[in-house]
Amino acid sequence: MKISNIHHIGIAVKDIKKSVERWKKIFDLNDPCFEEISERGVSVAEFEFEEGPSLELISPLGENKSLAGFLEKKGEGIHHFCFEVDDINEVVVSLRKAGAQFVNEKPQKGAGGSLIVFIHPRTVNGVLIELKQKPKE
Amino acid sequence: MKISNIHHIGIAVKDIKKSVERWKKIFDLNDPCFEEISERGVSVAEFEFEEGPSLELISPLGENKSLAGFLEKKGEGIHHFCFEVDDINEVVVSLRKAGAQFVNEKPQKGAGGSLIVFIHPRTVNGVLIELKQKPKE
Repeated sequence: MKISNIHHIGIAVKDIKKSVERWKKIFDLNDPCFEEISERGVSVAEFEFEEGPSLELISPLGENKSLAGFLEKKGEGIHHFCFEVDDINEVVVSLRKAGAQFVNEKPQKGAGGSLIVFIHPRTVNGVLIELKQKPKE
Repeated sequence: MKISNIHHIGIAVKDIKKSVERWKKIFDLNDPCFEEISERGVSVAEFEFEEGPSLELISPLGENKSLAGFLEKKGEGIHHFCFEVDDINEVVVSLRKAGAQFVNEKPQKGAGGSLIVFIHPRTVNGVLIELKQKPKE
């Protein structure tokens, strides 16, 4: 098994500041980390927990047609989840051999500067899955 | 913060056996645990990882109108995620005070016999969230 753990769940929201306040109020959460990833046209607020995966609220900046399209078509909600992997390039090769299709041809820079790639939802049950390279220790 | 970790991600699928084979093939996963929860009208296949949350493929048995309706309206895909909590009744009271709405009035029996309850998607950004009572040690 090349997948060892789930890194985060991504939730598509229209108004990131308003949504952050709502999640904080309902679940009594601490402040999230905010990041704007201009290369991917996405604004991210990441809530961390005592253990395990984080929750990312994501909202499109000007250029992210895919996320804006998701919001228009399906509305706000869970958008993707992310598997963390040791060697993203190796995993992409082996998943492709097993029949996976990818949204982008090669891994690109994601939140925190790590390499990420998205598996196309047509691969397994309509689920958009991000792969994220584990930071080197 | 009353929420300490994410317990699983639930993925709605039409054909659970076929879907299990597909996830196993693509991600080189071990066999999942199967469970039929007749009270909730749902068939579950749970994939576990080395650490952190599991992935649950869920498919409606005869009676689950809500899951069948989700599949009909939105198609296969991520259906919900689950927070694990120490005392589900206490958390329900405090979330209700903070403005959360629930799908069912009181916690009921879920996978593995533990108490669960669903927060209504209108509470935060269209997201269906399950709360699950941590097993007593």
